[in-house]
Amino acid sequence: MIPVEDAQQIVLAHTLVLPAVRVAFTEALDRVLAQTVYATENIPPFPASAVDGYAVVAADIEAVRWLVGEQMAGYVADFQVRPGTVARITTGAPLPSGADAVVMVEFTEERDGAVTIRRAVKAGDNVRPPGQDIARGEVVLPAGTLLSPAELGLLATVGQTEVQVYPAPRVAVMSTGNELVESGYLPGPGQIRDANRYSLMAAVRQAGALPIDLGIVRDRPGELEAQVRAGLEQADVLLTSGGVSMGELDLVKPLLERLGTVHFGRVNTKPGKPLTFATVGQKLAFALPGFPVSALVTFEIFVRPALLKLQGHTRLMRPVREVVLAHDVRHDPERTEFQRAIVVRQDNDYVASTTGFQGSGRLLSMVGANALLRLPSGQGNFAAGQRVQALIIGEVE
Amino acid sequence: MIPVEDAQQIVLAHTLVLPAVRVAFTEALDRVLAQTVYATENIPPFPASAVDGYAVVAADIEAVRWLVGEQMAGYVADFQVRPGTVARITTGAPLPSGADAVVMVEFTEERDGAVTIRRAVKAGDNVRPPGQDIARGEVVLPAGTLLSPAELGLLATVGQTEVQVYPAPRVAVMSTGNELVESGYLPGPGQIRDANRYSLMAAVRQAGALPIDLGIVRDRPGELEAQVRAGLEQADVLLTSGGVSMGELDLVKPLLERLGTVHFGRVNTKPGKPLTFATVGQKLAFALPGFPVSALVTFEIFVRPALLKLQGHTRLMRPVREVVLAHDVRHDPERTEFQRAIVVRQDNDYVASTTGFQGSGRLLSMVGANALLRLPSGQGNFAAGQRVQALIIGEVE
Repeated sequence: MIPVEDAQQIVLAHTLVLPAVRVAFTEALDRVLAQTVYATENIPPFPASAVDGYAVVAADIEAVRWLVGEQMAGYVADFQVRPGTVARITTGAPLPSGADAVVMVEFTEERDGAVTIRRAVKAGDNVRPPGQDIARGEVVLPAGTLLSPAELGLLATVGQTEVQVYPAPRVAVMSTGNELVESGYLPGPGQIRDANRYSLMAAVRQAGALPIDLGIVRDRPGELEAQVRAGLEQADVLLTSGGVSMGELDLVKPLLERLGTVHFGRVNTKPGKPLTFATVGQKLAFALPGFPVSALVTFEIFVRPALLKLQGHTRLMRPVREVVLAHDVRHDPERTEFQRAIVVRQDNDYVASTTGFQGSGRLLSMVGANALLRLPSGQGNFAAGQRVQALIIGEVE
Repeated sequence: MIPVEDAQQIVLAHTLVLPAVRVAFTEALDRVLAQTVYATENIPPFPASAVDGYAVVAADIEAVRWLVGEQMAGYVADFQVRPGTVARITTGAPLPSGADAVVMVEFTEERDGAVTIRRAVKAGDNVRPPGQDIARGEVVLPAGTLLSPAELGLLATVGQTEVQVYPAPRVAVMSTGNELVESGYLPGPGQIRDANRYSLMAAVRQAGALPIDLGIVRDRPGELEAQVRAGLEQADVLLTSGGVSMGELDLVKPLLERLGTVHFGRVNTKPGKPLTFATVGQKLAFALPGFPVSALVTFEIFVRPALLKLQGHTRLMRPVREVVLAHDVRHDPERTEFQRAIVVRQDNDYVASTTGFQGSGRLLSMVGANALLRLPSGQGNFAAGQRVQALIIGEVE
């Protein structure tokens, strides 16, 4: 039985970033960039008007000047702006030849081809010089950047229509147990509906990975082995739940021992004591406990960081905050426990209330939870007002 | 010209939650529930063992008892446990008739059909009574619940395979401007590549909505009207960018005035002064400014809350935190300004540094930003150490 932190480190030590793939930039949202993107041109590529108004020669002191033409965005007009003249110009249009500043339309008056300029400007005023936003040769986005909306806009701007990114890991998910029936069925005597596959596949998706549904697998060695092999073939990561406690029918761990290397089989944590982590070649396999809360909490603590690392993320862990307990909390000093809680901000503090009965089967205790309180081993019950660490897993109001 | 807060309220006042749709629960991740889900059965449905061990009669005081059989998960055995006897039982299996507690396997020894019980138990120990997790008739998930992984697991558990949810809004996105070319092309003289459609479609997707690409539309009245009509037909929301400042070619606002009702056309904010919001029937239309940063920031401030409301969310605004400025910040007192910043936690404070030159065209100023500093109108420059409000738009380390 190993401590939580050791188990987390062992998992990450065996998790390698997936090989990068080349994708259309439009498919790259929420991916991590595996290359550095440089600008091959200046942005803007030409001196461009920042406003609607009149292109002028800044040194010109005439109050009234003649209109020589109109420079709209999208092409280059063939006239020249000289002292005594101006050209109408729109936002984003290239500054016409001869002009070196733009006067905003608000400070002008145009009548019968004559334009009154009411405000003096300096050379460069209301003009975006070439390369102001991005200079040729500049690093636009370094390798390792998470591609969010602004980053996709930048890729479009510099014409980088394909990019190297780390792909979404494929994660095969199965539930094991003779008692499980599909959610569409009425359970018979001694049966219950499978919840874990659906909650885990959703958690996989929220972690940026692609779930593959391996269905419910009975506690029969042949069937289990066939599906575990199928999962490891199609996917980068295999997730099973159920079948990892101490009963005779716990078939997953021995199977993983046969197929690859089991790095640990029990972690000193609640929920999640029976938890197996194995590698088969470079593929990862997690055998999570079968209780619905245990499966989701161990996913959060051990699997999600690995899925993020596979995708090239460097921030793998949830933010940790010190929180104040709103009420007494019972805790077994022998294990590190993760209790589901709702954390709210009160003045400068974060205050945490647990979400009712914390039974491992009670998925309702996860509903609305935005934090997991981390109650360390070595200390018993906690009193209201005490401070503990919490993993923030959702938005805090 | 109206204040930011008024503009936000006007938008939300004209935004109605979309009619609910019925979907498979497996398609419901990140949707908001439009119905209340009740439990029609107890979960667990039967008294179930919480551990692997032996089912016993708690009042029985014999140290050594005879094994009468094995109760595994998934069916109901037909034997009875009476004083002087025990049955082997696995986690999740129904408690056999006659038994009222389970002794963990760690506190037992089985040899030749005789089981030594080393720890006394009370009735109910290590047994999950029917309805412990969810009682028949109980509200499992109230209407308005955001469906996350645990909630999908609950829907599976109670057999609710279809649910009423608020759908993802369809959002038609176009860029307007004669200067724009597609990202795959080399811009000619006076031309630039379109960035806004890609950054806005990505932002739409991150807000839980479905983008529809209407392409680049030239500043020609006929073409623009055809595409605006096409967008309003296919989508719940129309987003344009460009063509909303004061030039003669600003065609979007007059067109929206003709097709529907324009509620405002200018907001006292930077970036984003020229910003049109209109409704056409129950559909929303936003004409965002053309500068890449302006388009994304006005999306964040005005469009995202509306997209969330359409989906039935009730928390529409980003969390706001008081932050300490790490350096002096220049600010025009005439407008409420939103500057891009990186906020980090330092001890008990949030410290904000802006992301370099804040030009409206400089998308690089959005890269890595996890906050928008809100610099209120009525006050000029801010000094290092001053406290301002910030919208938290990304994870804070």
